[in-house]
Amino acid sequence: MRDVAVIGVGMTKFGELWDKSFRQLGIEAGIKAVTDAGIEGNEIDGMYIGNMSAGRFVGQEHIGPMIAEIIGLNNIPATRVESACASGGLAFRNAYMAVASGMHDMVVAAGAEKMTDVDGNEATATLATAADQEWEAFNGVTFPGLFAMIANRHMHEYGTTREQMAMVAVKNHENASKNPTAQFNRKITVDDVLNSAKVADPLRLLDCSPISDGAAAVILAPLEKAKELGLKNIIKVIGSGQATDSLALHGRTDITKSMATINAAEQAFRQAGIERKDINLAEVHDCFTINEIVGTEDIGFFKKGEGGKAVEEGRTKIDGDIPINTSGGLKGKGHPVGATGVAQIIEIVEQLRGKAGQRQVHGDVRYGLTQNVGGSGATGVVHIMEVL
Amino acid sequence: MRDVAVIGVGMTKFGELWDKSFRQLGIEAGIKAVTDAGIEGNEIDGMYIGNMSAGRFVGQEHIGPMIAEIIGLNNIPATRVESACASGGLAFRNAYMAVASGMHDMVVAAGAEKMTDVDGNEATATLATAADQEWEAFNGVTFPGLFAMIANRHMHEYGTTREQMAMVAVKNHENASKNPTAQFNRKITVDDVLNSAKVADPLRLLDCSPISDGAAAVILAPLEKAKELGLKNIIKVIGSGQATDSLALHGRTDITKSMATINAAEQAFRQAGIERKDINLAEVHDCFTINEIVGTEDIGFFKKGEGGKAVEEGRTKIDGDIPINTSGGLKGKGHPVGATGVAQIIEIVEQLRGKAGQRQVHGDVRYGLTQNVGGSGATGVVHIMEVL
Repeated sequence: MRDVAVIGVGMTKFGELWDKSFRQLGIEAGIKAVTDAGIEGNEIDGMYIGNMSAGRFVGQEHIGPMIAEIIGLNNIPATRVESACASGGLAFRNAYMAVASGMHDMVVAAGAEKMTDVDGNEATATLATAADQEWEAFNGVTFPGLFAMIANRHMHEYGTTREQMAMVAVKNHENASKNPTAQFNRKITVDDVLNSAKVADPLRLLDCSPISDGAAAVILAPLEKAKELGLKNIIKVIGSGQATDSLALHGRTDITKSMATINAAEQAFRQAGIERKDINLAEVHDCFTINEIVGTEDIGFFKKGEGGKAVEEGRTKIDGDIPINTSGGLKGKGHPVGATGVAQIIEIVEQLRGKAGQRQVHGDVRYGLTQNVGGSGATGVVHIMEVL
Repeated sequence: MRDVAVIGVGMTKFGELWDKSFRQLGIEAGIKAVTDAGIEGNEIDGMYIGNMSAGRFVGQEHIGPMIAEIIGLNNIPATRVESACASGGLAFRNAYMAVASGMHDMVVAAGAEKMTDVDGNEATATLATAADQEWEAFNGVTFPGLFAMIANRHMHEYGTTREQMAMVAVKNHENASKNPTAQFNRKITVDDVLNSAKVADPLRLLDCSPISDGAAAVILAPLEKAKELGLKNIIKVIGSGQATDSLALHGRTDITKSMATINAAEQAFRQAGIERKDINLAEVHDCFTINEIVGTEDIGFFKKGEGGKAVEEGRTKIDGDIPINTSGGLKGKGHPVGATGVAQIIEIVEQLRGKAGQRQVHGDVRYGLTQNVGGSGATGVVHIMEVL
């Protein structure tokens, strides 16, 4: 297995992009990543693209060849991977494996989703296909409903408070206000969250990540190639983990945790050979505010049940001891589901390069982590990167 | 890169399986493959599943964790890959790469599709998502329409006849009549094809593969592991290729060929280090009769334009010099799109093991090839296997 580096990144702004088609989003992110890497593009010999449901959102399956063609990479192998909202993370992992194995030399990992071409009901129904259709979705539960159950149980077991969840949203909107690619640029207060419309008790509108359009792309190459290109601040991938859990909540012994994240994080840290305390910042899958709390516990930053307290103490803010979701997270930056996992990688790359502008984490920033979740936690994908 | 072997195979019968759910199909194929390999199942540490459009056909995306869970492989990494009707071939290729790289030790490559839960119009519209939605499908062209254009051009350029296409269907139904897993077990005549309902001129009903339900699974392991297990007739994967072409037909300079297949075959043969004439039999993607003719030419078994004549001369029959689609192909065996590429692998494995029953190719059978196509040829995946 060869060492692998991320040599280029590019993404669209996330948001309700009614004036841009799925194709246009793919072109914009792809061209930006190629430009950022300072390459021509013809060196690229493979592509993975994460996408959850273009078949339903825009009536287009088979997007691998389409995206390869429109960004000028005609005829290279192009594979779509899907694991609901973790599709982008899996595109990155498979691209990493393709380069590490020597099967390919330079690979694009992309993610894209165009969610606003359908109405709200169809978007909700399509997102519900990430849950268990026969046991959950068909019977009426939606994603806010599933995470509301998780939130209620977490509050019951550990005393996590309604306010602590609100503080996740407040922090992530604060961070998003400093991120030009974010869907939301306005700051909010705890009161705003607590007084927003109830969606599925205890979750309110401002606990939920939005429906978004957007695309993101990164380019991976052997570490040696990155050095040959004379790149500075080379970002090395030092850990990759993936695991699954029961698709439906009822199959789990404890719904306040995801074995998929726990196992994926364990794999990634074992490969990286570093400790949780070594991580300088992380992007954690906050599709709902409760899931950032669950995720930070499952990764091992905090003990189970102490994620809410950590938010309240400010430990996860940009100036805290473990900044979480400096990009604004899914809540503030937006959540075009297939693109999210790749956009998480981009935030870590920009922070490790020291190029994150107003939201740059101060001090020594050497290691960053991403956690991408599919469904209510049935897929977990964790990556760790280091700047050389 | 390690050598890789196929150590177990299993599939459901293909057909209109109204009494079996998507889940049940996955369980049946998975358990059969594990049983065939003679393993417990807990040695398996990864899974790829090919599926085109469960999101539309059965309202279920995120099928990786679901299938891993129901066949008792809870918590392993499970990734769905999609490239329309080539999804199964890509599942196999990614599983091969995962084992070859050393990233995983024993991996399931599965494929599944449940197409008969929706009506014919919705099935046609869903299959059309494998074409270019904006440039082709939205404007009314269906898959029979796209392949009718290819057929007309092939007839015009090379003098391929209506009867030669019919002979592909006749041969594949003949082969399917000897295959217990096939959807169609009845033999047909050239006249049956020529007198069947016109679908898209010149293609008639019996030129078209059917709408099908089904699942297929194979298990890959390092070659050394296969030897340790004491397996006989070990099937080694000696070549793997994947490439893309323009998604829409108008993007190609010559619609009578697929650059995706041509490039994928070239990669696979280069890796295998053998010649076209060394191949003893092949499964070729006959979604429509014309595409078997195009495929055998693009792979390089026959010169461009001579595929039709080869069928007429009987060269592709079970007792011909290069038997094509001994399983019955997509036309006779059925075409549950995500499962097809994996089922092609299974036919080659059974033939190389000498276990293909009434349809066994006689004489020395050492090398077999599969060609799996996505859409109208935008994805091509080719594998070559050898029995040791």
